[in-house]
Amino acid sequence: MRALFLLLVSCFFMAGSNAQGGHELWLRNKTSVPVSVVCAETSPTLSIAVQELKDGWHGKANASVTLSIVNDDAIKPDGFRISAASIRATTHNGILYGVYELLRRQQTGQSITDERINPSYKARILNHWDNLNGTIEHGFGGPSIFWHRDNSLAVSDKDRLIWKEYARANASIGINGTVINNVNANPLVLTKDYLERVKAIAGVLRPYGVKTYLSINWAAPKTIGKISTTDPLADSVINWWKAKMKEIYTVIPDLGGFVVKANSEGQPGPQDYGRSHADGANLLADAVKPFGGIIMWRAFVYQPNEKDRAKQAYNEFMPLDGKFRDNVIIQVKNGPVDFQPREPFSPLFGAMKQTPVMPEFQITQEYLGQSIHLVYLSTMWEELLQSDTYQAGKGSTVARVTDGSVYPQKISAIAGVANIGLDTNWCGHDFAQANWYAFGRLAWNNRLKSEQIADEWIRLTFSPETNTTAWNTGFLAPVKQMMMDSREACVNYMMPLGLHHQFSANDHYGPGAWWAPARMRSDWTPPYYHKAEPNGVGFDRTTKGTNAVSQYHEPLASLFNNPNTCPENLLLWFHHVSWDFKMKSGRTLWQEMCYKYDKGVQQVRGFQKTWDKVESYVDSTRFRSVQRKLRSQLTNAILWKDGILQYFQTFHHQPIPFDIERPVNNLDEIIANEFARRPSR
Amino acid sequence: MRALFLLLVSCFFMAGSNAQGGHELWLRNKTSVPVSVVCAETSPTLSIAVQELKDGWHGKANASVTLSIVNDDAIKPDGFRISAASIRATTHNGILYGVYELLRRQQTGQSITDERINPSYKARILNHWDNLNGTIEHGFGGPSIFWHRDNSLAVSDKDRLIWKEYARANASIGINGTVINNVNANPLVLTKDYLERVKAIAGVLRPYGVKTYLSINWAAPKTIGKISTTDPLADSVINWWKAKMKEIYTVIPDLGGFVVKANSEGQPGPQDYGRSHADGANLLADAVKPFGGIIMWRAFVYQPNEKDRAKQAYNEFMPLDGKFRDNVIIQVKNGPVDFQPREPFSPLFGAMKQTPVMPEFQITQEYLGQSIHLVYLSTMWEELLQSDTYQAGKGSTVARVTDGSVYPQKISAIAGVANIGLDTNWCGHDFAQANWYAFGRLAWNNRLKSEQIADEWIRLTFSPETNTTAWNTGFLAPVKQMMMDSREACVNYMMPLGLHHQFSANDHYGPGAWWAPARMRSDWTPPYYHKAEPNGVGFDRTTKGTNAVSQYHEPLASLFNNPNTCPENLLLWFHHVSWDFKMKSGRTLWQEMCYKYDKGVQQVRGFQKTWDKVESYVDSTRFRSVQRKLRSQLTNAILWKDGILQYFQTFHHQPIPFDIERPVNNLDEIIANEFARRPSR
Repeated sequence: MRALFLLLVSCFFMAGSNAQGGHELWLRNKTSVPVSVVCAETSPTLSIAVQELKDGWHGKANASVTLSIVNDDAIKPDGFRISAASIRATTHNGILYGVYELLRRQQTGQSITDERINPSYKARILNHWDNLNGTIEHGFGGPSIFWHRDNSLAVSDKDRLIWKEYARANASIGINGTVINNVNANPLVLTKDYLERVKAIAGVLRPYGVKTYLSINWAAPKTIGKISTTDPLADSVINWWKAKMKEIYTVIPDLGGFVVKANSEGQPGPQDYGRSHADGANLLADAVKPFGGIIMWRAFVYQPNEKDRAKQAYNEFMPLDGKFRDNVIIQVKNGPVDFQPREPFSPLFGAMKQTPVMPEFQITQEYLGQSIHLVYLSTMWEELLQSDTYQAGKGSTVARVTDGSVYPQKISAIAGVANIGLDTNWCGHDFAQANWYAFGRLAWNNRLKSEQIADEWIRLTFSPETNTTAWNTGFLAPVKQMMMDSREACVNYMMPLGLHHQFSANDHYGPGAWWAPARMRSDWTPPYYHKAEPNGVGFDRTTKGTNAVSQYHEPLASLFNNPNTCPENLLLWFHHVSWDFKMKSGRTLWQEMCYKYDKGVQQVRGFQKTWDKVESYVDSTRFRSVQRKLRSQLTNAILWKDGILQYFQTFHHQPIPFDIERPVNNLDEIIANEFARRPSR
Repeated sequence: MRALFLLLVSCFFMAGSNAQGGHELWLRNKTSVPVSVVCAETSPTLSIAVQELKDGWHGKANASVTLSIVNDDAIKPDGFRISAASIRATTHNGILYGVYELLRRQQTGQSITDERINPSYKARILNHWDNLNGTIEHGFGGPSIFWHRDNSLAVSDKDRLIWKEYARANASIGINGTVINNVNANPLVLTKDYLERVKAIAGVLRPYGVKTYLSINWAAPKTIGKISTTDPLADSVINWWKAKMKEIYTVIPDLGGFVVKANSEGQPGPQDYGRSHADGANLLADAVKPFGGIIMWRAFVYQPNEKDRAKQAYNEFMPLDGKFRDNVIIQVKNGPVDFQPREPFSPLFGAMKQTPVMPEFQITQEYLGQSIHLVYLSTMWEELLQSDTYQAGKGSTVARVTDGSVYPQKISAIAGVANIGLDTNWCGHDFAQANWYAFGRLAWNNRLKSEQIADEWIRLTFSPETNTTAWNTGFLAPVKQMMMDSREACVNYMMPLGLHHQFSANDHYGPGAWWAPARMRSDWTPPYYHKAEPNGVGFDRTTKGTNAVSQYHEPLASLFNNPNTCPENLLLWFHHVSWDFKMKSGRTLWQEMCYKYDKGVQQVRGFQKTWDKVESYVDSTRFRSVQRKLRSQLTNAILWKDGILQYFQTFHHQPIPFDIERPVNNLDEIIANEFARRPSR
C-alpha cells in the first residue's frame, strides 16, 4: 500500500510536458529545411559534413551550399572560411568544423558573413580520468564510455554507438583530441589487447577529426616490460620505449601522443633516479618523434615537506625552460594548487618562454559541487585566460602566452579533464553539459565571452522549435544570468576571499576546514591552507612569508605582496591577516567573510527561484532533475557556510553579524557526520 | 586523535559565562536582604512560608512582615490579602501563596499595594501522564519523577528531594494538585504497595499545599479485584469501589480525588455495559463522597466510524448535563479534537450548564514541537480562556463559564498535562519551563495576560542580580517578543488556516499529511482532516457538511458557517473551500497558505537571530542548548513547509508563489524518510 502510494506520488512528479533525458546534448534534432550541398571530394569526414548540413539546415529553404578544399595559407589546418552559401578549408576536418559553425549560427540566430576562422590552439584535448576497470576518478556522470566495469575488451555495437555520439559532440564544438585513460595510468593500456581496443576507439573517432591519445605510466618498462630500471638515461629504458612506440603506432598510426603524470602524488617518475622532468619528457619525445606524436608533460607536482605547495611547480620547471624537445608541451593546471574554485593563475604561464605551455582545465567538478551543484565554469576559465601575466609586457594574457600569439611555438594545446560518462545525460547534471560545451568553444577561440557561450548553449539545448519573445525573456535571460552568477556563488559559499582547499577528506564536496589527523601529510589537510589562529587567518605568501609572490612578474608581485592592493578575492591566498583587517567595504575581514558565505547561500536560493519560474519552458525530466539538484546544492551551501564560519569562530569568538541568516547545522555534528555524509548523485 | 579533536571543539563550545543547568527554574537564589517575619501560628506550611520570605526577601532591608490567619469571607481558602508588610489569609496555604506573590512582585519589580487576591479555580491540577514503569506518555523532559524505570517502589532521599523541589515550584505559582499517574491508567496503582508510595509522595507535597490525585482504570474491579464485571450498576462493582476507596483514603486521608479516561481510545468504560458516562462517574463519585474526593471525568471520547470526530464529545455529554453527582466535574480538552496548535474552543464549554466543566490544557508539547521547538503556550491558552461561548449571553468566555462566574458550581478546576521529568532542567527545553509557569499563573488567575506572565518568567528565570536598562532592552524585550510570537509561528509553519492533525504517524512531530495506510482507522490519518482534492481542501463542518457548527451558540454558529465570516485562522477547520478561494488579503487560499508556511519559517529564522543576539546575557549552557534547539526547530519548520505544500501541489499543480523561499526537501524523500526520521532530543 505504501509502495503503491509512493508510486502514485512519483506519477505526479512525472506529469508535465514531454520528458527528455538530455542525451542529445546541444545537438537536438530540430525540424530542418531542405538544402542542396555541393562537394567535389569524398571522405568519411566529408560525408559526415554533408549529412550534418542536410539534417540540420536552418537557413534559406532549398539553398545551395558549396564545400571546397582550397589552398590558402591564412586558413590553418582546422580553420575555414564560411559564408551563407559556402565553406572553404584546407583540410576535410576544416570543412566539418565550418559546417558546425554554420549550423550553430543558424540555430542560435547569429549572423553569417564572409569570415575566416582559425582555432586558438592546434590541439584541443579532453583528458578522461577513466580507469581500465570502467571507474572514473572524480567522474560524476556514470561509468566510463571507453572501458568496461567487467574489464571486457570486446567492442560492442553499443560501444561504437556511444563513441560515435561522443565524437560528433566533440567535433561540433571543435575538440580534436581525447586522452582515453586516466593520468594516474595503468600501464596495461600499452599492451596488445588494450591497444586493439584503443585502435577500435580511434577508428570511430577519426572521421570526426578527434585524435586519440593515451596516458603513460612512467614505470611501464618495469611493470609490463620486465626491465629492472626506469632511469630515463638507461639504454634499456630508451630502447624499450622506442620499441613500444613502434608497436603502438603500428596499431594506431595517427595516435596523437601521450600525457604523463610523473613524480606527482606518488606516481613514479625520472626523479626517482635523480633525473629531471626534462630527461623524462625528452626520452619519450624522442621515442615518439618518428611517428609525429607529442608528449604532454604535466607540471602538477609537489612534495609533502615543502613549506608552500603553490610554489613547487614553478620551482621545478622554470630551471628546465628550453631544455625540452620541440614535441614536448608542459601541461599546467590553471592555478598553482589544484583546480580550486578560485586561484590566481599559475605563475608558469608566460614565465616559461622557450618551452610551450598548455593550460589544463578541469571540466569535471571535483571541487565545485561535483554533479550536484549548478556551476558554469566558463567564467572561471575566461578569468584565467584573460589574466595578464605581464611576462612579455602588458597584455601578455594567459590566452596569448599559450596560443602562440606571444612566443613562437611549434605546438599549442589546451586540455580539459572530461566530465563525461554513461549517464543518459552524459554529465550527471544537465547543466554540466554546458561546461563540456564551453571548454570546446574556448579551446577553439580563447577570446570568446562566457556570456555568448552560455547564450549559444542554452539556445541549442533548451530552445523550442520556434523562438519566441516569451522564451527569450522568460527562459533564456534568467537562466543565462543564473549560469553567469553560478561560479562566483560557488566561491562565495565554499571559499571566498582567497580561501582554498577547505574540503572534507577523501570527498572534495563538503567542508572540512578542521580536518587534520596526526601523521597525515600536512599539505593534504585544510589547516595547512587556512592557517587560522586567534589573531588571524590566511596563507602568508608575501616576501615576509613563503615569497610565492616573487614567482609573478611585476607589477603583480608587488600588487599581490601588499594586502591593501592585493585583489580581495585572493587576499587569504597571499596574506595572513587579522580577523579585524579592514576591507574596502568598511567591514572587518571576519564580517566580510560572513557576508560572502551568506551571499553565496542566498544566490543559490535565487537560482532555485529562477529555475522554478521556468518550469513551463523545460521538459519535466530535466526540470525535476535540476530542481532536485538545486535543493541539494542549497543544503550543501548552507553546510559550507555553517561549518566554516562556526569553525573559525572557535578561534576568535566573534559573532556572525546578526543580519545574516543563522546557522542551522551544529559544528560538532557537521564534524561528526563528515564521513557519513556523502552526496547522493 | 579525532576524538581528542572533537573534545577540543567541545571545549570551545563550553567556554563562556557561568554554566547553569536551569534546574532552579524561576526560583533562583538571588542575594536577599534581611527581613523579620512575625507569625503567631506554626505548621509545616507556615514554616515554609517564613523561610521563603527570609531566603527571598528583596523589599526594604530589615523590614518586618506579619503573617496572620484571619476570618474574612472575602478571602477564599487559597486566597490572601497582601501589603508591603503583611499577609493575611484564612488558611495556612493562603499565607504560603501570599508569600510567593509578595516575593514575585519584589523580584519582578511590580508594585505592592493592599490587595485581596483569590484564585480563579479551586483545583489547579497537573496531570502527569507517567506510567508506573517510569516512562511518560508524550513526556519530553526525561523519565518520571514519581515512578522508577526498574519498577522499584522504595522511596529514596533523592526521590524525596525531587518531590520537594517539585512541590515548591508548584506552590510558588499556585498549583495545588497533581495527578501522579497516566490517564491511560495501570490499575496496579490502586494496590497496597503502590498506595504506600503514593502516601510517601503525598506526604512530601502536602506542606506545599499540593494535593495528590490518581488516575483510575475503569476495569480495575476486574483486573485487580477479580470481579467478573465492571457494570457500574452492578452491586459487586459498587461494593468493590466503596471498599477500595475506603482502603485508599485510609492510607492517604486527604487524597484529592481521581481522574478517569473511560471509553476513549480503547480504554474500558461504562459504555461497555450499555451504561452512560454519568452512570460511571456517579458510581465513583458516590464511593469517594464520604472522603471528600472529586471525580474528574474526561470528555475526550470519539469512535472510529463517526463522520466527524470533532462532534462526538458534545454528542455524548450534552444529554447527560445535570445527571452527574455534585462531586463530579467534566474535564474537557481546550479544543474539540486533540491539543492541536490551533482549534476552536470545545463547544462543551458553557453548553453544559448544570454540570461543572474544567478545561484541560496540554503543557507538554505533544503536538507543538515537543522538546525541540520554542513555543510559549500561554497565548494559546489565553485565546481559549478569552473565547466567548455566548452560552449565557455576550461575555460568556470560557474563563467565566468554567470558574464559577456564570454558573453556580460547587467545584471548579483546571488541569494541565505536565511537561516535567528528571532532566536537569525538568522540561527538556529551557523555555518549556515557561509553559509550566504560565499554566500555574493562568490557573490561579484566568484573566492574566500572556505578556505579563512572560515578563515575570523571563525576569525570574534569566535576570541578573541587578536589573539594568541594557538587560531590559537587550534581553527582556526581544526574548519576550519571541515568546509572544512563538505559538503563532508554530501554527504558521505546521498547520495554518484551520488545518489540523497533519502529523506523521506515531510521532506527532513532523508532517504526515499523506499518511493513510489501508485498514488504518481513518480518523487516525491526516487525510480525514484535510480532505484535499483537486478542487479544494478543508473539512466541511457547516450545515451542509457535518453540521458541527450547530454545536456552537449563535452568533458563532452562523459566523462559523459562512466562509466569508468564519475567522480565516479556522477556515479549513469549518470549510472545504476551493484552492482559489479569495482570502481577505486578496490572495487565493493556496497562495495564502504558502505565505503562512513561509512566514512561520521566517519567524523561526527571526527567533534564531533574537537568541544569538542575547548570548552575552545568558549562561553558556542554556544559551547553547536553546541555540541548538532553534536550529532543529528551523529544520523541522522547513520540513513542514516543504512537505505539506508539495503534497498539496500534487492535487492542484499550482506553483508556490515565486517570491517565497523554495523547498529544500523533496516530497518523495520526506515521505520515504518519515519513519527513519525522529527528533534527537
